[in-house]
Amino acid sequence: MKSNANEIKFLKNRSIIKFEGEDFLGEIGIDGRVFKALTFARISVGIISQQAVENGLSILVHEDDSEKAVNCLIEEFATERKSGKVTQIYSINNVSVIGFVAEDLNKILSELARNNVFPLLLNQNSSEKRINIVVTSSQDEKTKNIIESEIFKKPKTVHLAIIGHGNVGKTLIEQVLHSSEEIKRRKNIHLKVVAVANSRKIAFNKKGFDNQWSNEVFASEKTSNVDELINFSKENQLENLIVVDNTASTDFVKNYHALAENGFDLVSSNKIFNTLPIEEYRKLRYTLNTNNKRYLYETNVGAGLPLIDTIKLLHLSGENITRIKGVFSGTLSYVFNNFSLRNDKFSTIVNEALEKGFTEPDPREDLSGNDVARKLLILARELDLINEFNDINIQNLVPEALLSVSKQEFLSRLEDLDEEYDKIKKNQEPGHVLRYVGDLHGDLQKEKGNLDVKLISVPATSALGQLKGSDSIFEIYTESYGENPIVIMGAGAGAKVTARGVFGDILRLSETK
Amino acid sequence: MKSNANEIKFLKNRSIIKFEGEDFLGEIGIDGRVFKALTFARISVGIISQQAVENGLSILVHEDDSEKAVNCLIEEFATERKSGKVTQIYSINNVSVIGFVAEDLNKILSELARNNVFPLLLNQNSSEKRINIVVTSSQDEKTKNIIESEIFKKPKTVHLAIIGHGNVGKTLIEQVLHSSEEIKRRKNIHLKVVAVANSRKIAFNKKGFDNQWSNEVFASEKTSNVDELINFSKENQLENLIVVDNTASTDFVKNYHALAENGFDLVSSNKIFNTLPIEEYRKLRYTLNTNNKRYLYETNVGAGLPLIDTIKLLHLSGENITRIKGVFSGTLSYVFNNFSLRNDKFSTIVNEALEKGFTEPDPREDLSGNDVARKLLILARELDLINEFNDINIQNLVPEALLSVSKQEFLSRLEDLDEEYDKIKKNQEPGHVLRYVGDLHGDLQKEKGNLDVKLISVPATSALGQLKGSDSIFEIYTESYGENPIVIMGAGAGAKVTARGVFGDILRLSETK
Repeated sequence: MKSNANEIKFLKNRSIIKFEGEDFLGEIGIDGRVFKALTFARISVGIISQQAVENGLSILVHEDDSEKAVNCLIEEFATERKSGKVTQIYSINNVSVIGFVAEDLNKILSELARNNVFPLLLNQNSSEKRINIVVTSSQDEKTKNIIESEIFKKPKTVHLAIIGHGNVGKTLIEQVLHSSEEIKRRKNIHLKVVAVANSRKIAFNKKGFDNQWSNEVFASEKTSNVDELINFSKENQLENLIVVDNTASTDFVKNYHALAENGFDLVSSNKIFNTLPIEEYRKLRYTLNTNNKRYLYETNVGAGLPLIDTIKLLHLSGENITRIKGVFSGTLSYVFNNFSLRNDKFSTIVNEALEKGFTEPDPREDLSGNDVARKLLILARELDLINEFNDINIQNLVPEALLSVSKQEFLSRLEDLDEEYDKIKKNQEPGHVLRYVGDLHGDLQKEKGNLDVKLISVPATSALGQLKGSDSIFEIYTESYGENPIVIMGAGAGAKVTARGVFGDILRLSETK
Repeated sequence: MKSNANEIKFLKNRSIIKFEGEDFLGEIGIDGRVFKALTFARISVGIISQQAVENGLSILVHEDDSEKAVNCLIEEFATERKSGKVTQIYSINNVSVIGFVAEDLNKILSELARNNVFPLLLNQNSSEKRINIVVTSSQDEKTKNIIESEIFKKPKTVHLAIIGHGNVGKTLIEQVLHSSEEIKRRKNIHLKVVAVANSRKIAFNKKGFDNQWSNEVFASEKTSNVDELINFSKENQLENLIVVDNTASTDFVKNYHALAENGFDLVSSNKIFNTLPIEEYRKLRYTLNTNNKRYLYETNVGAGLPLIDTIKLLHLSGENITRIKGVFSGTLSYVFNNFSLRNDKFSTIVNEALEKGFTEPDPREDLSGNDVARKLLILARELDLINEFNDINIQNLVPEALLSVSKQEFLSRLEDLDEEYDKIKKNQEPGHVLRYVGDLHGDLQKEKGNLDVKLISVPATSALGQLKGSDSIFEIYTESYGENPIVIMGAGAGAKVTARGVFGDILRLSETK
């Protein structure tokens, strides 16, 4: 019964009979007895596999025969069992066999391996390139899908779980849905959004959400819960999993370990994890490493600007990075670009930024410098420095008197800031402008660097001085680049560019899947 | 004979006896006869494996027994052979068995697959996690090395073939040797330079060159030849191969296909391939794809600046890139930055650049704009535009009268350029400077874009106007980034930064290996 070359054979409901013992090697005849006993019991035998180096046989039978087969062999080898020569006879149930013809078995094995599919048995008929794989039934659909992708050149499916569908998450989903066909065509990768969650609810769609996704989330009655997500991925045997954290939640980051241990690569615009104490930071890297998973977070600093990846590669290749400096906050870029150029009062500019949605509802969150500080810390840790958040010298732009008042009171008393900032502005040298910067400097070959977040005055003609709009700018000084740093500049904030940057991380992971 | 859990068993000189036929499935007893026949002939049998779905047995014996085993079965199944039930009985010789204990078989299979290792048979004793793999002997050392790397957490070895050891190549080798220990420590990746070639000679060192490499190249008597390189990699069963082309050779690029088809990933600072006719360009991408290999060329444009990767990701994620513009040539950056700022004659500046080594020995190569044009073409093709070199409107800075004269004559007549360039400089609006730019514009959603390479006049306060030294600058305009482009600026030329950029590509490939 020669099968069609293109067919994939799929046999469920099998069992493996394991027959193990000592010192079989060299003892001619044991295996003959095994088969004789089974054939005498009218048990149809599929794959038989004997370990060359260790001692034992693996025999494939229909699961209906498995108990009979085990008993049969127990009886046949009663003497050897008593003497200890035969140590174990047992069955592994719920396995499936998948048979196919493939040019490139390597590629298939690679894909299976990456998706944690563990072939219990594998063999091939090399003259016809027919291959059989035996896997546990809980993985058989996934195995079949992966093999079909390869043989029929079907697109590789990447399953995305999007956590957080606020500005960035929502925009990201739209971008993914919009580009999905094109990416399938160009890269043979099918991006599917299969889960969307917020802090309360989670919705699943194993076929992949379409633009009705927000209705489905609204209608969902499942509580947002990482176990729900992990179970969903296992029950549906989903391969190539990526979880994307677009929240600012301190809670959700606690799930990163569990997700990495259960087959998910991680992507986040959420900065929280990378600014946790260094021990937590390192523990996750260890977990990722041992589970062969990756965590990408380009958008932690500079939205979609190619910053983290650039620094990573320079540092890993041994380039001596001596300083990183720049304007890291789109909000404060807008505020000080405008305050420097115009004659308006400081409070006028801040109110404007608030109205345009450039600041948090309470502008003190931006003016505190904490966001800039977190970004600076993340960059420092890319250089393997073990700084903590408390190491950072942060100039809080909010006067002490206004630090603890209510938000409403702060907003009503914004003009209290005007006198001080007017003075700072006027005290500059001519042709200078104000910029709120993050600065990583010092001897960066040591364990810790110096991290400063502060308001400075720079020449209007300098790169920092030239900054426009709400752009961010990063200057990376290295030994090879000498006096003139690498400069990366552009919109460093905003839902569109951040979502695009997250999308870039998703693609980086997908391409190597 | 229970083996030590940590031991890797390695048995060479085996053969697989293939026993194939029709309709075995369901016919109980054939396999029993096979074993009985072999045991009667006193042939010691190792692994036996029967395909579940197709029809046949694979039997592992010592190669000394293979002929006897084949003959034995031929005789036993004479009737079935005559009737056509048994179709083939033959041996596959020169196989080896490797047995080991591993926690993560998936990872090992993944690594083997990536290195084109084709397990002929594989099985495992799941209670003890003992695994046996049968491979052809020409791959057995590579297999053992890969398995050892995994089990004993030995570093993964990446083997580099460096083609071209001029300024960039030499600097790259130094950087690799310098950083090798650190990368081994941090990433458990061992970078080894195993081949170094120039246009005439090639030298090999399978242990990896140290800082005596140039002596070994000098002493080598092997002719530089891609077959030599491919054979070397196969004979020594080297895994994780990357060839790095740091030449400017139009000849060597013809080898890219063969290298990709024989296990090598490609990295090049060499721009030639990517500016060949679009059909060649596409054919290589097809070859890379079918062989599961990658080609990285970040340094084709902008040396180590993060340009190509950024554009690739933006484009693939569906971002609408509307324009790319900038100063692409470090040489011409130097020339026009200085010419604009100083009162010196144009010929003075060009001579200075020549003496400082910023230009080719014949400066007309830089002044022709061809290098800028090639870079612009490569960027256009990253956006899937099918432009050819001839589409580019190139303003050649060399006057027609001097195009065809000898190099010496040109150098002696440099001052002929002064009057024209002085006029161009003076004719600018106030506060403007000259910049020689590449500009990709037009409707980039169509098949082809507009590519211009020309001298323009820009405000001194603009980003382009601010350019210093011999820096390059790239402005990427996209839909999401709106009016303010992504700006990437820095040293876009020079051996150190170019080598560092090539090193970045090597690390990108190594990390995903």
